[in-house]
Amino acid sequence: MAFQGKKLMDDPDDAVTDFIEGLVETYPALHYLDGFPQIKVVLCSDISTDKVAVISGGGSGHEPAHAGFVGEGMLSAAICGDVFTSPPVDSILAGIRAVTGPKGCLLIVKNYTGDRLNFGLAAEQAKSEGYKVEIVIVGDDCALPPPRGIAGRRGLAGTILVHKVAGAAAEAGLPLADVAAEAKYASEMVGTMGVALSVCTLPGQLTSDRLGPGKMELGLGIHGEPGAAVVDLLPVDPVVSHVLQQILSKDTQYVPITRGSRVVVMINGLGATPIMELMIASGKTVPKLQVEHGLAVDRVYTGSFMTSLDMAGFSISIMKADEVILRRLDAPTKAPYWPVSVEGDRPPTKLPVPIPTSCSRKNDEGSNRPQELSVQGRILEAAIEAAANAIINIKDCLNEWDGKVGDGDCGSTLFRGAAAIVEDMRNYYPLNDAAETINEIGSSVERVMGGTSGIIYSIFCKAAYAKLKENNLPFVESRQWADALEASITAISKYGGAKAGYRTLLDALIPAASILEERLAAGDEPTTAFFLSSEAALSGAESTKNMQAQIQVPWLWQLGTELQLWQLRTSTKREGYIFVELLAAPLILHFWLFHCRSFTL
Amino acid sequence: MAFQGKKLMDDPDDAVTDFIEGLVETYPALHYLDGFPQIKVVLCSDISTDKVAVISGGGSGHEPAHAGFVGEGMLSAAICGDVFTSPPVDSILAGIRAVTGPKGCLLIVKNYTGDRLNFGLAAEQAKSEGYKVEIVIVGDDCALPPPRGIAGRRGLAGTILVHKVAGAAAEAGLPLADVAAEAKYASEMVGTMGVALSVCTLPGQLTSDRLGPGKMELGLGIHGEPGAAVVDLLPVDPVVSHVLQQILSKDTQYVPITRGSRVVVMINGLGATPIMELMIASGKTVPKLQVEHGLAVDRVYTGSFMTSLDMAGFSISIMKADEVILRRLDAPTKAPYWPVSVEGDRPPTKLPVPIPTSCSRKNDEGSNRPQELSVQGRILEAAIEAAANAIINIKDCLNEWDGKVGDGDCGSTLFRGAAAIVEDMRNYYPLNDAAETINEIGSSVERVMGGTSGIIYSIFCKAAYAKLKENNLPFVESRQWADALEASITAISKYGGAKAGYRTLLDALIPAASILEERLAAGDEPTTAFFLSSEAALSGAESTKNMQAQIQVPWLWQLGTELQLWQLRTSTKREGYIFVELLAAPLILHFWLFHCRSFTL
Repeated sequence: MAFQGKKLMDDPDDAVTDFIEGLVETYPALHYLDGFPQIKVVLCSDISTDKVAVISGGGSGHEPAHAGFVGEGMLSAAICGDVFTSPPVDSILAGIRAVTGPKGCLLIVKNYTGDRLNFGLAAEQAKSEGYKVEIVIVGDDCALPPPRGIAGRRGLAGTILVHKVAGAAAEAGLPLADVAAEAKYASEMVGTMGVALSVCTLPGQLTSDRLGPGKMELGLGIHGEPGAAVVDLLPVDPVVSHVLQQILSKDTQYVPITRGSRVVVMINGLGATPIMELMIASGKTVPKLQVEHGLAVDRVYTGSFMTSLDMAGFSISIMKADEVILRRLDAPTKAPYWPVSVEGDRPPTKLPVPIPTSCSRKNDEGSNRPQELSVQGRILEAAIEAAANAIINIKDCLNEWDGKVGDGDCGSTLFRGAAAIVEDMRNYYPLNDAAETINEIGSSVERVMGGTSGIIYSIFCKAAYAKLKENNLPFVESRQWADALEASITAISKYGGAKAGYRTLLDALIPAASILEERLAAGDEPTTAFFLSSEAALSGAESTKNMQAQIQVPWLWQLGTELQLWQLRTSTKREGYIFVELLAAPLILHFWLFHCRSFTL
Repeated sequence: MAFQGKKLMDDPDDAVTDFIEGLVETYPALHYLDGFPQIKVVLCSDISTDKVAVISGGGSGHEPAHAGFVGEGMLSAAICGDVFTSPPVDSILAGIRAVTGPKGCLLIVKNYTGDRLNFGLAAEQAKSEGYKVEIVIVGDDCALPPPRGIAGRRGLAGTILVHKVAGAAAEAGLPLADVAAEAKYASEMVGTMGVALSVCTLPGQLTSDRLGPGKMELGLGIHGEPGAAVVDLLPVDPVVSHVLQQILSKDTQYVPITRGSRVVVMINGLGATPIMELMIASGKTVPKLQVEHGLAVDRVYTGSFMTSLDMAGFSISIMKADEVILRRLDAPTKAPYWPVSVEGDRPPTKLPVPIPTSCSRKNDEGSNRPQELSVQGRILEAAIEAAANAIINIKDCLNEWDGKVGDGDCGSTLFRGAAAIVEDMRNYYPLNDAAETINEIGSSVERVMGGTSGIIYSIFCKAAYAKLKENNLPFVESRQWADALEASITAISKYGGAKAGYRTLLDALIPAASILEERLAAGDEPTTAFFLSSEAALSGAESTKNMQAQIQVPWLWQLGTELQLWQLRTSTKREGYIFVELLAAPLILHFWLFHCRSFTL
């Protein structure tokens, strides 16, 4: 059953002229002849008539072919027909007259009867007007066996490579006969075969579902003409193998490529194929050509060059390369759709993963835990242990609260973090260095807690660490702890996107940091200041009771990451319960450190 | 009901690593870190560590973003997550370490929680390792009204413009703070909104058909997150109008663009949108920005830059431009997917259709018919009239024969040609110049007969004309007529693709030309030679009775052009009937000319 495909356009009859108008808006060097709707000719503004003009064209619906390849060094003009319809003779003639100088022009035509006849008559007419005209017909299809009769082999994406060779030869100043000879030679060196997952939708028409679900077609033409076979959808690896074998078949001998040949390869999307899939096909094609077919691959062109409107699938073109062809393909061009950065030698592609400048100590199996703890080392050890135990002890309680709005694993997650801290501390925390120890706490938490909560707590520690390291003092004073807390809050807010009043752990942390700063500045004892700061954190958490949660949960659900604790707990699902208190766990941990330190001092 | 989308790949779990392998095969300057599958980092081989490194990344599925924008002058590295999943911290860190030198690095991150946190933690970790790191978050979505809470505005295709500004600023040698400031400023100048016709298919997963037939979604996110509204599919013109109004809305004030501002615009395909449709959208967008919104459009970028796998639809991004931003956007880059040939002034785009060098006489209302006919002129007139009448007289007979295999209009079509020739000749054929007269016969036939038959007969005449003009003799001799016939046959064979034995009119023409050549060379009287030649044409036509037709009709049916007489008549549908004889009409016409000429001489 046919169905109505969706298109973003206005009147389908204006599709081609509307396309041309957008094209010239995008590319300032492209222009069109003022002859709509019959004459649809795109040309270069900086045509030099002291060189051979290279002209191509045909039915539209194959964009970017051919108008997207107009530009210095490639095509001088493209003659656009209506969708899948050869352009009329008058349009072709207008294009020839517009760009052809005394050196003449070469017409490159895909092998379809309509194109051959219309371009042919235009060529004869132009000759009768005194222009020098040569014509090269490209029929690069390798999907179907010979003999192909009058219709011959279809012109496919290999035509783009012929355009490039001819355009570069013309740009190099060669006379018409030589440009035509290079184009003809190139056309004989290239073979193409396509694979389609869908047929295409013509503007304003119904789409055939000739290819049902789970099916693909081998050798489908660029207008949806039937291919060699409809088969079950296969993974790309065997598809590429089959296509390469068909193109390089010794039976058809469509291209004179044998083991040891140098080739270039084009992986061409048929219109609706994502770049990801095209690149996957390229990644499969190159090693197969090298290893299975014994070919040297000099260039790879991956992209959508010769499409069939919105057809899904790709074609592979292989062209036998030599020094001249490579030079033509590598020559610079201003044609917008000729791929850039593809030329040059093909070095090895893998680089080693760099080794971190500061290697994490946990790899060194406890070697960095000091033999003997300093005074600060002992304080830190006691503080960390107390804080971690506080978390461990409320595990069930946290899970129970969390169960009211979520999956009830908040306590377990925090438990994992606290337990890992205790264990890692015994094994390798460098406790005599407070800053490095905070850094390790972050690594432990990130490693075992996972998800967003692990990252948030880890950012908290890493930012504190970076702040503490700024001064690099042997002993960390109260004011530096306060500055570190400030830096941690800034980092969490920056990366997490929350601010005060968003009903997150920041509503506990921000007042705590303010009070700590304030009391220390006022000359309070550190112990008093830390205690008041802790009280402020609890009040801050209480204050979130009546706040409106700010998280936009719908925006997160499809991100492919699990929805994380820190966000779920403040979702709009629940009202009036102080869940933010739970989320102050790192704060509790942090403040335990400070409390214990003060107590032990 | 969800359905299984089709993809050309192998194991969906390997999609991203397979993509990267194809990418580096295609672009020799790109490499990847040897840390698959966890670490998926694409980087430039020619990184200069004496400049600020610009790094971006995020979930995959948005190709070419971000890996396709790695290259000198744009990104130094791209960190690829799994499809729609933020890359892990270790992967980001590996990328930072691989490309960051003493001048530090800038991380450009799309505003999604996962990306913000993972890149944030990596930034903090890198800082703790001694790297200078800045981070800029891009949230350019304009589809949904403020406030956007913690999630904020989504990062969309505008991010690519920020990449380019930052990459060019880094390439210019600016210090990290300045590169970050330019990137941040650019991120505040750009707004984006998307329109989708379909949701996307994740590798290995089912596709939702949330968007039913005939529906489109405004403001859909690049991971398929719900948009502002699902509406009936509209033509592209009102869609573009709506999107532009949303982006430039005075209510949201998402971008500081007002009448008189200079802007650049990006039309971004979402993965499965053909270039034709993207260009149509560009062609609608630019005039609307200029006329309806009073903006100066400095640059237009049309293509697929930030996709959503195989989603159909596009987004529009508008960035307020100034001299600095334009300089950054125009700066050269080797990044493969940054568009080329888009810079420069925007001149008028329409050029006049060139006037033919030899204007057809039929426009001059008979002014070229000589007042007095020469001897040759009189012979030609009589010959043409006799030949045309021969065709006119067998109209019904031809139709009847044609009715046995086709639509029975062969006689009528040829009648139209013959009648036009007679009429045009009386009005304006320059009968004293035989070559020009042959040329006009071709134009008459092409004008009124249409289709392939008109073109074939016209090519016949134009090629004869060009041959006759080569010598430019005042009086055409028998040998020149013979050479002209030879040239006509060559042209028909070349453009039509047929050869002797293909059961076409060439099977009548080729023996006729050979005999004519042979007899004239042997010194026969022209009248005798022409007569024998005509007999050879008839025998040639007879000989096609038992030939196998060579036309591959299935290849033609979808070409969008009607199947033409010349081809249908030799189709496999019929056996053993001399239809080629009908097709020798131009030959009859041609030979009547010669016969009559001989008779009258």
